[in-house]
Amino acid sequence: VSEGAVHAYIDAGMDRFRRELYDFLRIPSVSADPAHARDVRRAAEWCRDHVRALGMDARLEETDGHPLVIAEWRGAGAAAATVVVYGHYDVQPPDPVAAWTTPPFEPELRDGRIHGRGAVDDKGQVFMHLKAIEAHLAATGALPANVVLVLEGEEEVGSAGLIAYLRDHGARIGADAVVISDTALWQGGIPAIVASLRGTLYAELTIRRGGGELHSGTWGGAVLNPANELAGVLGSFHDRDARVAVAGFYDGIDEAPELLARVRRTPLDRAGFEREAGTRAIGGERGRSILERLWLRPTLDIHGIESGYTGPGPKTVLPARATAKFSCRLVAGQCPDRIARLLERHVRARVDARFDVSFRVLASAPPWQADPGAPLLAAVAPLLKRHLGRDAVFVGDGGTIGVVPVLASTVAAPILLLGFGLPGSNEHAPDEWLSNALFERGIHVLADLLARIPRHGSSR
Amino acid sequence: VSEGAVHAYIDAGMDRFRRELYDFLRIPSVSADPAHARDVRRAAEWCRDHVRALGMDARLEETDGHPLVIAEWRGAGAAAATVVVYGHYDVQPPDPVAAWTTPPFEPELRDGRIHGRGAVDDKGQVFMHLKAIEAHLAATGALPANVVLVLEGEEEVGSAGLIAYLRDHGARIGADAVVISDTALWQGGIPAIVASLRGTLYAELTIRRGGGELHSGTWGGAVLNPANELAGVLGSFHDRDARVAVAGFYDGIDEAPELLARVRRTPLDRAGFEREAGTRAIGGERGRSILERLWLRPTLDIHGIESGYTGPGPKTVLPARATAKFSCRLVAGQCPDRIARLLERHVRARVDARFDVSFRVLASAPPWQADPGAPLLAAVAPLLKRHLGRDAVFVGDGGTIGVVPVLASTVAAPILLLGFGLPGSNEHAPDEWLSNALFERGIHVLADLLARIPRHGSSR
Repeated sequence: VSEGAVHAYIDAGMDRFRRELYDFLRIPSVSADPAHARDVRRAAEWCRDHVRALGMDARLEETDGHPLVIAEWRGAGAAAATVVVYGHYDVQPPDPVAAWTTPPFEPELRDGRIHGRGAVDDKGQVFMHLKAIEAHLAATGALPANVVLVLEGEEEVGSAGLIAYLRDHGARIGADAVVISDTALWQGGIPAIVASLRGTLYAELTIRRGGGELHSGTWGGAVLNPANELAGVLGSFHDRDARVAVAGFYDGIDEAPELLARVRRTPLDRAGFEREAGTRAIGGERGRSILERLWLRPTLDIHGIESGYTGPGPKTVLPARATAKFSCRLVAGQCPDRIARLLERHVRARVDARFDVSFRVLASAPPWQADPGAPLLAAVAPLLKRHLGRDAVFVGDGGTIGVVPVLASTVAAPILLLGFGLPGSNEHAPDEWLSNALFERGIHVLADLLARIPRHGSSR
Repeated sequence: VSEGAVHAYIDAGMDRFRRELYDFLRIPSVSADPAHARDVRRAAEWCRDHVRALGMDARLEETDGHPLVIAEWRGAGAAAATVVVYGHYDVQPPDPVAAWTTPPFEPELRDGRIHGRGAVDDKGQVFMHLKAIEAHLAATGALPANVVLVLEGEEEVGSAGLIAYLRDHGARIGADAVVISDTALWQGGIPAIVASLRGTLYAELTIRRGGGELHSGTWGGAVLNPANELAGVLGSFHDRDARVAVAGFYDGIDEAPELLARVRRTPLDRAGFEREAGTRAIGGERGRSILERLWLRPTLDIHGIESGYTGPGPKTVLPARATAKFSCRLVAGQCPDRIARLLERHVRARVDARFDVSFRVLASAPPWQADPGAPLLAAVAPLLKRHLGRDAVFVGDGGTIGVVPVLASTVAAPILLLGFGLPGSNEHAPDEWLSNALFERGIHVLADLLARIPRHGSSR
């Protein structure tokens, strides 16, 4: 009976929900742009005030950057489960603004899509959680679980404030589950639960010769060339099977057989994949499928190379320095610090000692892998079937969400990554959108999920 | 008696010679800068008028670019030798002008050096030939050889006009020798005759994936990365002995044993070499000395690489394209067209067929090597000993002077590269200078040389 009332409340409220979401989306909370610092704070205050109005305790938690919004409702009691809902209220810059069909911060419903910066990443999905909470509180006067909302304003710029907060306070939350809606359904609109994220180790290598640029006729052949040297080093990163040729790189990888089996069962529309990538240059590690390469296998990709003369025409210069940026995506069992050491050793062993070598780590985050047998993941599957009409698949995500492994290690609870975007939602591009149908159905899913959070472990 | 009169004339005229040279140097004949096109023509006209006043037939020969100055004196008769004196009246841009001690086009004598743009490269050295010619004509009424002056205004921008002219008219000049003063003495002021120039084959390689830049988390591992691919190709250019690992690259190299022996006898001040290079990263092909590497051995040097993101900090982008510029310096026996084919084959064999590959040749010139037994080279050695007080060495030049092999193949006469610069003359840099002492003594050398040009071959 009470569940029916919750769903009825949601159905009755959708028009108002959309209007409220538009208010949220109108705030240009671009965390990367200092000119928008006050807007970012305004968005935090909007969240705080909105959840207070729902009946939660809410406060801003200051950080060295943008504030966190922490809201709690503990009325379900010690016997009930406690769920952390994490999301972010900051958004990507809207550039190039001219490429938007309608202005990025003037949301509108068009062709069944809610358009606007942040519609899917992540304000829209945060707001769906707020409405699921509201529906329970308004229809029944209570939540079926204790809820802790943790919203940050720095997800698009590295989550430094949240990570520091979690290291200090994460363990004290005492959560049974963490739910995050900041991802997407699978190709063709199949509901998807993210079972793994890759980590990252991003480094910059600079090789300097000493002195300035030299004429390649006068000096070439007798003066060492840092561009030749860099090419030699970068060219040694892979073998002919497109495997990473850094000694020890694959050691310790912990590929869960059940995850591998699930990935192998995930259907892939190859033509659709090429269309989304915009290229037919699809390939990678020998003997692995596309989805294994994306989700379960580590990489070493060069992001940028710069050396010498790159203008038009010929210029006969011997460069004085050569720089490359590259990163590894890491999978379960790979430690970023260890990979950094292996990479640096590989590089230094190959660069002539007469060069000056700088190897700097610019970013680092461990991988994350769900326990595919966790009750939390089992609990959500029938809800997705019920409200979205299709069986969910377990997918990986080749990218890195730095805060997820931090949540896993500090809050120490199973994590559910359950998102309502769709492939092609333009989440970092012009014309970002969220499906209006998934906005509605997702709130129903999340409302049901609140009533089905399993307790975690026996120690509590 | 007449030779004494020639030298006396030179000694008596030096103050005036310097003033005239300054007039020449004041003309900013920067061939690379269209804004100076009229100045370049003015310098050509200055040369034409100056040699006319000496008593030579002189004319401008129009080209698609800046004009040639062609001047002839054929009064020595059919039994006498005919010498082509080649030089250029255009100069390098003076930038950065603020780095000059005195303005680039306001020449002055300071600390025994004639300062000014073009002082050594090449107006000053061209002018030395003019004064050697003047001395003979003024002191004796005649030249000891037939002389054809060929001065161009495009040496600093590729010599296209002269090369076209030589292909049409070079063979008809009927010369016994070509003398070029556009080089320098060896370290420590040892007189030097250039016995070889390297050729060049300059290419640009671009590897494109199709589509735009992609997120390395979302796509990395399953989408081919052109930066990885370029690094692999460039990294395959050399083996561990720093030899070029392109199949067939060294085939056909014709290393004259006498030249090699001469290079091995050439003294090298290692510390001075490092000082001039501004670096201690000296190295190269295994088993070869520095001078062999510079003068007698071919190279493959990368001049520039550009791909992806090269700004500050990490950006997780999979580049859509990667480009490199590189060139080979070539030695006797290596044909630029053949090397281009070998390089392109090497590249295409290594790049995955799913990429789009562009391989373009941007510049090309064959190497040149003197016949070390040529009577012309033997004729000059005692003159250098007499006027400069030291035995000359044969040196190579690692660079390329594109017009030299064209002169060799069209005029078809031995070529003497005899220059009066000194190491560190700043010929393409601020504060370019020519030693005043070498300016004076060099005119004596060139005046004597005119009287000692050997006839070439027996066919004439």
